[in-house]
Amino acid sequence: MKKPRIGFQGELGAFSQEAVQKLLGDAAVVVPYQRFEDVFKSLDAGETDASVIPIENTLHGSVHENYDHLLNYNVRIVAETNVRIVHNLIAPVGVRLKDVRRAFSHPVALNQCLDFFVRHPNVEKSTFYDTAGSVRMVVNEGLRDAAAIASSVAAEIYGAHILKRSIEDDRRNFTRFFLLNTKKKRVLPPQPTSPVWKTSLVFSTSNTPGSLFRSMSAFALRDLNLTKIESRPLRGKPWEYLFYLDFNGSEGEEKVQNALRHLQELADFLRVLGSYPEGD
Amino acid sequence: MKKPRIGFQGELGAFSQEAVQKLLGDAAVVVPYQRFEDVFKSLDAGETDASVIPIENTLHGSVHENYDHLLNYNVRIVAETNVRIVHNLIAPVGVRLKDVRRAFSHPVALNQCLDFFVRHPNVEKSTFYDTAGSVRMVVNEGLRDAAAIASSVAAEIYGAHILKRSIEDDRRNFTRFFLLNTKKKRVLPPQPTSPVWKTSLVFSTSNTPGSLFRSMSAFALRDLNLTKIESRPLRGKPWEYLFYLDFNGSEGEEKVQNALRHLQELADFLRVLGSYPEGD
Repeated sequence: MKKPRIGFQGELGAFSQEAVQKLLGDAAVVVPYQRFEDVFKSLDAGETDASVIPIENTLHGSVHENYDHLLNYNVRIVAETNVRIVHNLIAPVGVRLKDVRRAFSHPVALNQCLDFFVRHPNVEKSTFYDTAGSVRMVVNEGLRDAAAIASSVAAEIYGAHILKRSIEDDRRNFTRFFLLNTKKKRVLPPQPTSPVWKTSLVFSTSNTPGSLFRSMSAFALRDLNLTKIESRPLRGKPWEYLFYLDFNGSEGEEKVQNALRHLQELADFLRVLGSYPEGD
Repeated sequence: MKKPRIGFQGELGAFSQEAVQKLLGDAAVVVPYQRFEDVFKSLDAGETDASVIPIENTLHGSVHENYDHLLNYNVRIVAETNVRIVHNLIAPVGVRLKDVRRAFSHPVALNQCLDFFVRHPNVEKSTFYDTAGSVRMVVNEGLRDAAAIASSVAAEIYGAHILKRSIEDDRRNFTRFFLLNTKKKRVLPPQPTSPVWKTSLVFSTSNTPGSLFRSMSAFALRDLNLTKIESRPLRGKPWEYLFYLDFNGSEGEEKVQNALRHLQELADFLRVLGSYPEGD
């Protein structure tokens, strides 16, 4: 059987690739893209069989661009997973910690390792466009006084050496990822991660007093627990919003079908983005 | 009387400076800072008398970083205003449209003028770190084949020439700005912009079914119209959120005081960020 091709944003070794592995194991071929939009476009065009995208991080919040793409492309969320973001100091083989004068990484990653830089004042923060890409660069350039900050997968891929593991300031740093399918093909994790299901949807309501409250009653009156609400600007209607909701429950349940029918009555626009087992 | 010093992020001529002018007229001295955090820090330290910050844009959504700073610094929102984002093609005096081969600007601004680049295939998009800063650069370098894309205020400040006005693709591009005060000083617009008031607050609730719905009932049951809801991750509690609400009404009204007391009963945490006249 041919392995499915899974698109993600970033260089080989990015945290998205860890998410692909966690969701699908080694039964997948990863296809890196530069931009999130390219990940959606290539899935839409059938160049890939599925995609994995980050949707929120516990320190930084939502990846808003991907919320917009979920609306603009005809994709379904079929699974989710949470990856703990572990930053490692990685150098070409032979380079020792005491040799390191510069540490390259994406600015967000550098900012998540400030304690390390305080404890190692000889090491300078050097910004680079990508975490995994910074490992590739220090290896390819054969730098003897530099390291990179990235995932352990990146160290493995580029044949580099982990000088120090888990140098991030806050260990409660997780990113939630979605596995996306189109209607054409089904690429699913080998087994569901949880018996608890979630459903994600996007809707808009008329801008009248109490309209969001009434929309949410469709869930509250049926004891369906909201796990996330996100608002995005509605294009062409300044100061109006689209709302993205996640709640516990699956489209297969009658209670959920009733809630969706109720919300449909109240909403100007409604689209279900998918039902999937809660991620571990 | 000494003019108040107003901090904002960006170079002189940034859209934030237009917001300062719209809010306070010429009765203010503007103080530019590189980062949003510096704008909050300097206000906190008394280096400035007030600050103006962008909080959301009708095409791009919220400026999430500033939502976080509103929580972390002890500031009050005392006014808001909406600025239409008009992008102009600006060049050093003497440079004509047909001479222009490159247009410099911030990537977001370049992306908001795609139609212009389609109609002018000889002009290349060149990214720069700032809109107003790109005007300063083309003027200071005396470039004869380049222009910048920025506000008309930037053209004025750097003595440059507007080659083409309003080249943005979508005219429904507005940014909403807040005027912030601390407890020490009051810097207010000369007159309220509207008889309708708004109040902004931030709260968190326990993560139990229906808790957000019950919190919103404090407003819905009193016919107080929510105009915005924004969620941000709660630090240290993965997958829990802070909610930022804006609603019509002022803290001075009894109905609003009742709603806030009701919300206080339900919330783990609540802070009112300010009441202010609705912006024009």
